[in-house]
Amino acid sequence: MRNIKLIIEFDGSNFCGWQRQPKGRTVQKTIETAIFKATGENILINGSSRTDAGVHAREMVANFFTNSTIPGDKFREALNTRLPEDVSIIKSEEVDDEFHARYSSKGKTYSYTIVNRYERLSLGHQYLYHCKYNLDVDAMKEACKYFIGIHDFKAFMSPGSSIKTTVRNVMQLYIEQKGNNIKIFITADGFLYNMVRIIVGTLIKVGNGKLKPEDIKSIIAEGNRKRAGMCVPPNGLILEKVFY
Amino acid sequence: MRNIKLIIEFDGSNFCGWQRQPKGRTVQKTIETAIFKATGENILINGSSRTDAGVHAREMVANFFTNSTIPGDKFREALNTRLPEDVSIIKSEEVDDEFHARYSSKGKTYSYTIVNRYERLSLGHQYLYHCKYNLDVDAMKEACKYFIGIHDFKAFMSPGSSIKTTVRNVMQLYIEQKGNNIKIFITADGFLYNMVRIIVGTLIKVGNGKLKPEDIKSIIAEGNRKRAGMCVPPNGLILEKVFY
Repeated sequence: MRNIKLIIEFDGSNFCGWQRQPKGRTVQKTIETAIFKATGENILINGSSRTDAGVHAREMVANFFTNSTIPGDKFREALNTRLPEDVSIIKSEEVDDEFHARYSSKGKTYSYTIVNRYERLSLGHQYLYHCKYNLDVDAMKEACKYFIGIHDFKAFMSPGSSIKTTVRNVMQLYIEQKGNNIKIFITADGFLYNMVRIIVGTLIKVGNGKLKPEDIKSIIAEGNRKRAGMCVPPNGLILEKVFY
Repeated sequence: MRNIKLIIEFDGSNFCGWQRQPKGRTVQKTIETAIFKATGENILINGSSRTDAGVHAREMVANFFTNSTIPGDKFREALNTRLPEDVSIIKSEEVDDEFHARYSSKGKTYSYTIVNRYERLSLGHQYLYHCKYNLDVDAMKEACKYFIGIHDFKAFMSPGSSIKTTVRNVMQLYIEQKGNNIKIFITADGFLYNMVRIIVGTLIKVGNGKLKPEDIKSIIAEGNRKRAGMCVPPNGLILEKVFY
């Protein structure tokens, strides 16, 4: 059997997330259906991340094993012609048997975009989080540096997943501001459940003046979920890239 | 009766356009329903433009006459709390009785965004037009200047509307490029039916090398719809601003 790697872009607005589930439209199941149509094979694919409902991806990675004779690079078109508009295969290729989209991953980058304005937001609301109260972006930028490094991030995790350790390495966390758009980029070796959305919620709490930038240090040290910020909505979140 | 002016942002993805119609969800009807809920009045509102299904607006303008005692600037919140997520009132104010969103307008700016890349597009597909073939943006920029000025734009109009004249004044037409995003801005005193989308289609024909930039001159002079480009899909189009 051959191992095929896919790079996938999707608009998560009308999906119940990545992972296959008994009810509801998921990205995984949608791609598996396209593979079935192209190859006649009933295959389970491995995704690099189990993104939640409403979360988007610019470069999600998945792999699967196939007996089909379709050349690796031709899977892109073979699947795209069988996929709905909100999921696209950006690249397909044959890879080593060892490659696993999830376990081989060395890290991921997510972005989260906030629109900071008083007026209500409609245009692009599926991709943006609207924050009505004026945020101190300089304070938020200052707070970013306290997250960087190897820390126990248990204060920034929602319950509901069983994991061995809550220690993660945040390699990068920075903010790009353009007008009233505040775009946060975060790269880590891995993420706890809702970790990006809770870190963003905590940065917003700093931007609101409810936390000082240096408070991040003690929140991490205490592992205190209650002092960290809210879990912001999924729609501002994009999986930008997976590293191998 | 008092005359109220609204500035409206909407995501056109799930609307059958602006104008009220017997069947289908429209922006006009949605706002009129919110006004009814807020004031108890059954009112018809005047929109500055009759945008098609799938077209978006950052600043659509409308006005209506009311007997309600709600202060002009309070209509914003009064309506927003009664509007779905994809329509927002950005500003409301009381204006002179003479003001009419459509007839008082001195001009409008639209933008149209193309993503020029080989790979299929899913992320943001409701707001972007995907062009697979490599476009010569310099040639497109060169072509822009031939549209500017007072011309008979009948070559850039779809049939279906009765109008007195097909002469319009294009005050501005320019392109901003950022990576594979090509964003076209056009300002005119008024637009013929589908005029922006056909001008964009014609610029794409120039970008594809099927027309030379200077061909625009003779297409305008001949009024030849067949030599102009296709009418590109609505989803890349945003009504940016209306001038008074």
